Amino acid sequence: MSDASCIYERIAAAGIKLNPPGKPVAAYVPFVESGKLLFLSGHIAKQAGQPWVGQLGRDMDTATGVGAARAIAVDVLGTLQAATGDLNRIARILKVLCLVNSSAEYREHHIVANGFSETLEEIFGDAGKHARSAFGVAQIPSGACVEVELIAELR
Amino acid sequence: MSDASCIYERIAAAGIKLNPPGKPVAAYVPFVESGKLLFLSGHIAKQAGQPWVGQLGRDMDTATGVGAARAIAVDVLGTLQAATGDLNRIARILKVLCLVNSSAEYREHHIVANGFSETLEEIFGDAGKHARSAFGVAQIPSGACVEVELIAELR
Amino acid sequence: MSDASCIYERIAAAGIKLNPPGKPVAAYVPFVESGKLLFLSGHIAKQAGQPWVGQLGRDMDTATGVGAARAIAVDVLGTLQAATGDLNRIARILKVLCLVNSSAEYREHHIVANGFSETLEEIFGDAGKHARSAFGVAQIPSGACVEVELIAELR
Repeated sequence: MSDASCIYERIAAAGIKLNPPGKPVAAYVPFVESGKLLFLSGHIAKQAGQPWVGQLGRDMDTATGVGAARAIAVDVLGTLQAATGDLNRIARILKVLCLVNSSAEYREHHIVANGFSETLEEIFGDAGKHARSAFGVAQIPSGACVEVELIAELR
Repeated sequence: MSDASCIYERIAAAGIKLNPPGKPVAAYVPFVESGKLLFLSGHIAKQAGQPWVGQLGRDMDTATGVGAARAIAVDVLGTLQAATGDLNRIARILKVLCLVNSSAEYREHHIVANGFSETLEEIFGDAGKHARSAFGVAQIPSGACVEVELIAELR
Repeated sequence: MSDASCIYERIAAAGIKLNPPGKPVAAYVPFVESGKLLFLSGHIAKQAGQPWVGQLGRDMDTATGVGAARAIAVDVLGTLQAATGDLNRIARILKVLCLVNSSAEYREHHIVANGFSETLEEIFGDAGKHARSAFGVAQIPSGACVEVELIAELR
């Protein structure tokens, strides 16, 4: 069985349920395709459908931030499914930008971002390995603790 | 009349005057083309040609931030005109990154960003609908309140 | 001699030694290729192989920040070499994102970013001129003072 054909089995094994992207709260669309490139909008962390509010280094610890980043990965998988109709169309996750709502002292943004990155690798295998930047921002819309956008390559 | 051919009429109707991009204040160029992709540098908000200084949540309110984001959209249209020679060459606005100069408490970055996004939709119609990330940053060059970069697809 | 064939002479003249990228400290890869596009992960500033810690406007001045950004350019050249096998394969540096670890008052992020941009122009000539965004972030992984990611076009 090819690596790609295992995607849905891995998603099931991880206990992930794919949900369609929520309606954007502002004037943008959740994804745009251009040639082989697929651009995803920033996805904020949510808990029970609501913004997962918190700031790392102030009122949220790294382990919780990792969980929030993983929750974003689950939402991103739903958006990728909506964008492609079939996740096997994803040739590669190319580039991830991970924004961590951060105090001026917090320094573990890369560990938080791993909650996202490791979930994508878990599901897509080598095709899930991506270039990435992670850093701390002053705030995120609705007070969310983490926000992630990405660029993927389509077959 | 095609959607695209209305662009300059919509620009006139919106009272927008297209200006060539200002000379970058640093070691970069305002735009770079690669295949069908056009990458625009970050444009900071300006007022009367000077940086529009302010921080959301400290000394600027959301409505003013929306106006500043709209002012960036006007400047971006000028840069797109300079880059393409004809705005009808824009096939799609793909991806927008909107940085809001933000206190650690401010949470309406997405509303500020709408000042930019809605202006592009107003001018380009469906081709103006884009993927987007918006978030709060600690500061912006010259103290500007908002900065926007984008990627567009050319015909 | 073509502009491109001078690259390694310019690198030698600048006293730059190309080093392979360090092992990422988290779950990502240093670069990903897609068609003609090459995406580089965020590179944090390092000094003697360790994160170059500091915040502009708090405990680091602009001149030091410029040096840190130049140090990132040297590391990025090493990553580009590892990614391409031959820097003459770089057709153009397309887009740079420069994140400056910044207090809420600091306003010279674009000058810091020039330490990176001017080094790339020095080495690649016109092919090194890029679109760019620079801004101040709340913090950077490991407390580094500057972080840079980029997209390049390959021949």
